[in-house]
Amino acid sequence: MPTLVLASASPARKATLLAAGLDPVVTVSAVDEEAVTAHYGVTDPQDVALVLARAKAEHVAARDDLPEHTIVLGCDSVLEIDGRTHGKPAGPAEATEHWQNIRGRHGTLHTGHWLVDLRPDGSGGSTGAVGATTVHFAHLTDHEIDAYVATGEPLHVAGAFTIDGLGGAFIDRIDGDHHCVVGVSLPLLRTLLAELGITWPDMWRANPTRPPRGD
Amino acid sequence: MPTLVLASASPARKATLLAAGLDPVVTVSAVDEEAVTAHYGVTDPQDVALVLARAKAEHVAARDDLPEHTIVLGCDSVLEIDGRTHGKPAGPAEATEHWQNIRGRHGTLHTGHWLVDLRPDGSGGSTGAVGATTVHFAHLTDHEIDAYVATGEPLHVAGAFTIDGLGGAFIDRIDGDHHCVVGVSLPLLRTLLAELGITWPDMWRANPTRPPRGD
Repeated sequence: MPTLVLASASPARKATLLAAGLDPVVTVSAVDEEAVTAHYGVTDPQDVALVLARAKAEHVAARDDLPEHTIVLGCDSVLEIDGRTHGKPAGPAEATEHWQNIRGRHGTLHTGHWLVDLRPDGSGGSTGAVGATTVHFAHLTDHEIDAYVATGEPLHVAGAFTIDGLGGAFIDRIDGDHHCVVGVSLPLLRTLLAELGITWPDMWRANPTRPPRGD
Repeated sequence: MPTLVLASASPARKATLLAAGLDPVVTVSAVDEEAVTAHYGVTDPQDVALVLARAKAEHVAARDDLPEHTIVLGCDSVLEIDGRTHGKPAGPAEATEHWQNIRGRHGTLHTGHWLVDLRPDGSGGSTGAVGATTVHFAHLTDHEIDAYVATGEPLHVAGAFTIDGLGGAFIDRIDGDHHCVVGVSLPLLRTLLAELGITWPDMWRANPTRPPRGD
């Protein structure tokens, strides 16, 4: 079985891969994001997401202490609304203003993915792609915005929302892959692995289990 | 704070509500689903989902051992493809055949929701609605179908798939609310609670926390 090395500190990405039956090993990259995007001269959200995902994967792939049979995965997520990218808010006031602006509207979560195949007997390949999911924000009341910002959650995440945490009820609908919003698109990862000659079940850890959806 | 009593044994529903910061108390209903749908003469998937959600909620609401300030939530999910509803597969052969049929196609997950407000000082209301999310199934290979069925997961869930478990990579995209597919739509629940005069933050447990989406 290949070992999936996740070049990201994101607990949500790790949790997503675990829930899907994979067994990622986390090795955090130390990439200077501003230097990378400046070097490549990219500004479009999807280009930024792909270039950063690749930089993270290649930074970790260059290490000499990785497990044998490793596939490295780098990811980077960028939220775009009206052509502008949105990072973490600077503080509660900015988070409040951001939500007053986006409520009732929609944005696009671009998540770049990059794989590097380091298996001795592997494809030797390196491949990537960007997933895009449209996110429709609910029309929050001022009271809801204040209460949400007071939880602290919006201050720690790009775009000041989660879909898998306290913000779940504030996303009315999405068009695309849910896991792409959380930070790693499982169907896109399945497609990219296939390009390297790896089927999705090859990546499942032994005896993966999960509570079933009930009645 | 109102107590949310979840009239469902589904671990996925409970996990969804917990991740969103709520604190559900599970009280399982004992509803004869076939008798209920026969009594009301409903056959359309969305009607079945709503009638069963209501029956579950009202069955639990009739108990005399509920906490004070209770809101009861009943849910029922029905998968529809080409106008046909799909329950749990009878065994591995049926699960395999089902996936051979649905790969590369799409279906609709209808989830009915029903709330009963039992708070002494509450609205006294009872209200419900059905959420619908379109699910696009990936074009699985025969090998992937065999491997997925061998995990056992598809045998325990309606429609023979999960989106939050091992099946996550096999759903290419959705149109609608992700949590509706898992079993309870958070944005729809927010809307229904508002009809009873309850804002979403009123339902958060004290100090709800969640690992942030990271970079």
